[in-house]
Amino acid sequence: MDLDPAALLAVAREEAVLGKAEGGVPIGAALFTVDGQLLGRGHNRRVQDDDPSMHAETSAFRNAGRRPHYRDTIMVTTLSPCWYCSGLVRQFTIPHVVIGEAQTFSGGHEWLAEHGVRVTVLDDADCVALMTEFIAQRPELWFEDIGTSS
Amino acid sequence: MDLDPAALLAVAREEAVLGKAEGGVPIGAALFTVDGQLLGRGHNRRVQDDDPSMHAETSAFRNAGRRPHYRDTIMVTTLSPCWYCSGLVRQFTIPHVVIGEAQTFSGGHEWLAEHGVRVTVLDDADCVALMTEFIAQRPELWFEDIGTSS
Repeated sequence: MDLDPAALLAVAREEAVLGKAEGGVPIGAALFTVDGQLLGRGHNRRVQDDDPSMHAETSAFRNAGRRPHYRDTIMVTTLSPCWYCSGLVRQFTIPHVVIGEAQTFSGGHEWLAEHGVRVTVLDDADCVALMTEFIAQRPELWFEDIGTSS
Repeated sequence: MDLDPAALLAVAREEAVLGKAEGGVPIGAALFTVDGQLLGRGHNRRVQDDDPSMHAETSAFRNAGRRPHYRDTIMVTTLSPCWYCSGLVRQFTIPHVVIGEAQTFSGGHEWLAEHGVRVTVLDDADCVALMTEFIAQRPELWFEDIGTSS
C-alpha cells in the first residue's frame, strides 16, 4: 500500500503552523511507519526552548522515542532537510523522506537520493508561503537556524 | 595559536566516562572556540533521557546554546562522528573536528575533510578502550544508537 504523501505532509504542516504561532522557525516534521502510523511529530524549537539542536526533523525523531531501527519509517518535513537532518535520515537508514518544498531552501535531499533514500518533493504552496514570509520577516533568525549568518 | 588537541579531548573523554558511569553510551563531546574557550560539553543521552536524538555531539552543541554562527569553533568528540553528527558539523560550518578515535566506528569524518573541514584523529587508547568494552558488553544498545540493529 502506498500512502498519500499530501496527507502525511498535512501533519508536518500543522506543526510548522504551530511553530509560527509560537514565534519560532515555521518548519514542522513527523515520523510515520510505512503503513501510516504516526510515531512522533514536532517542530523547530530554537526560539521556544533556546535550543539550536531541535530542528523540525530532530524534534519529530526525539518525540518518536527510542526504536531498535527505522527501516520501516517515513520522515515527513515541510522543508528540504539541512545537512544535519539529512545526516539523521542517512545514519538511521530511514528509507523514505517526504518534503513539502525545496524552493526556499535546498539541503541534502539530493545526496540522500544518491544514497538510496526515496525522496518525494511535493512543491506545496502553503509550505512555500510559510517560509517565504518567515525569511522576509526574520532573516537573522533563519540564517542562525542554518548556521550561515555573518 | 594552535591548541593542544589532547587537552581538548580530555574534556570530551571526561564526558564519555560520565556517560559510562550513568549506564549510557560512553561517547562524549565538547564545543570550544578556536582560542580554547569551552562553549558546551555533553555526552550521549539515549539511555539517561530515553532520547535518541542526543548523541554526544548534539548534546554538546545544545549545551553551548544559541550562537549566530560557529565559524570560530572546534567540535571535539571521543569517536568518529556518525552521519547525523557529521551533518551537524557541515551544516553549521564548524571548521575543525578533533576525534578521539576512528577505529571502533568510522562515521563521516572523511566526508567532512572532503568538504573542507579540518579533521584531527588522535588514536587515543582510552577512547578505544571505552568503546571496545561497551560494544562487547552492550552490542544491542550500540547498534540501536547508530540505527543498525536488526
